[in-house]
Amino acid sequence: MTFSEKLKRIWAANDSLVCVGLDPDIKKLPECVKASYYPIFDFNKALIDATHDLVCCYKPQIAYYAGQNAEEQLQMTMDYLREKYPEIPVILDSKRSDIGSTAEMYAKEAFDRYKADAVTVNPFMGEDSMKPFLDRADKGVVILCRTSNPGSKEIQELESGGRKLYEIIAGYAVTKWNYNKNVLLVIGATCPDELGEVRRIAGNTVFLVPGVGAQGGDVQKVLEKGKTPDGRGLIINSSRAIIYASSGNDFADAARNAASELKDTINQYR
Amino acid sequence: MTFSEKLKRIWAANDSLVCVGLDPDIKKLPECVKASYYPIFDFNKALIDATHDLVCCYKPQIAYYAGQNAEEQLQMTMDYLREKYPEIPVILDSKRSDIGSTAEMYAKEAFDRYKADAVTVNPFMGEDSMKPFLDRADKGVVILCRTSNPGSKEIQELESGGRKLYEIIAGYAVTKWNYNKNVLLVIGATCPDELGEVRRIAGNTVFLVPGVGAQGGDVQKVLEKGKTPDGRGLIINSSRAIIYASSGNDFADAARNAASELKDTINQYR
Repeated sequence: MTFSEKLKRIWAANDSLVCVGLDPDIKKLPECVKASYYPIFDFNKALIDATHDLVCCYKPQIAYYAGQNAEEQLQMTMDYLREKYPEIPVILDSKRSDIGSTAEMYAKEAFDRYKADAVTVNPFMGEDSMKPFLDRADKGVVILCRTSNPGSKEIQELESGGRKLYEIIAGYAVTKWNYNKNVLLVIGATCPDELGEVRRIAGNTVFLVPGVGAQGGDVQKVLEKGKTPDGRGLIINSSRAIIYASSGNDFADAARNAASELKDTINQYR
Repeated sequence: MTFSEKLKRIWAANDSLVCVGLDPDIKKLPECVKASYYPIFDFNKALIDATHDLVCCYKPQIAYYAGQNAEEQLQMTMDYLREKYPEIPVILDSKRSDIGSTAEMYAKEAFDRYKADAVTVNPFMGEDSMKPFLDRADKGVVILCRTSNPGSKEIQELESGGRKLYEIIAGYAVTKWNYNKNVLLVIGATCPDELGEVRRIAGNTVFLVPGVGAQGGDVQKVLEKGKTPDGRGLIINSSRAIIYASSGNDFADAARNAASELKDTINQYR
């Protein structure tokens, strides 16, 4: 099944646009999992079990595993998800980008090693740097377009030929780069007006929207500007506001409550 | 010692601008190392021992380790370099980019886990996405500017306000982003004219130049357009043309010959 089909099914089954970002910082983990032999995996597993019926996606951010020497626990998390919840697609957030022969190695990392359903990529180096990802028709390729961080304007809002860089990227993404109909775009919740502009350019392309929760994006505006006519078209990610909803032994219950609340808030505006 | 000081010393000591890219693809390794328990490390070790007096840098491309489940062998390679050849700086080629809290994890990956002297980063997300790297004054931060791949034009040559994107990036790199005097730029050998333009913008900033060797860049033109008045200012990388110079048991000797030849060709035009 392609990423896109998997996403449509889970949107329907769980009636949810929520994506939970699995970005475990060992320093922030609750005491009750810190002592475990695999604290990151145990933390993720508890979060997944507590939220699996409330989400449309999980999104592990690979930097947290690479920065903490925890590739094994990322692999365990990916394996657990695929075995226990095969209906839920997983986006590996790695924002890779490199020349062709190297990008092939990154595609292997995401799709063959970790068996992700989709991956985030950075378009700065152009189409050939994304081709090994785009060629995998069954996988989703989530291209950075207008990111949620304060500094994203510096490059992404530069104007060329009357259009801003993120608009140019959105245009390429839905025409040139979408030859396998597997392209998605990253647009931050922190810039809802830009979200609306990209929606006009990109038709029904699915957007991965980070930046609600800890980064302060407004859910109502994201839905108003970004949803497709069927009330979908969005994967709305929250990481810290869900996974660290409580720092105590009740962290998984608290995560469930936070995910449920986000799901309901989103559905109110669909 | 800062990356910059280390680089100046080794430029002088080895009289070389050559960087060897350690991009081991297990499928391409000589039979004599394939059978080893740590084939990638043994391959790297032999290459390093054979070329250490001919280079100014090594540059492992992290995709080759991540794509082949070989982080341990990357760590072994980094440890070996630091212990046996502490005078040679190592650039971890990872082209990372992410929002602040995640970029901090990537800085930990490069500088604390692998103890690299420098790292490549992608500027598409803006200054805050590079800040955790730029803040490390003792480390080098090598920012993508005009990359060597055919598709790089697609985004990097877009014009805004009369300047191309790579020129804008070069300008930011030497003004806004260089607050710790630790910024370098990536400019491909495959576009020597652009190399000359960036040299005019970026003064004596050091350029990491990939694209000679397998990618076909012209060494003479790179030197003419890119060198600084003292005949330096460049780290010229070759990966495949050196590390796969022979596929037989003599691979290390062949790599030494290829590195020596590249060093001499470069020095002819300095």
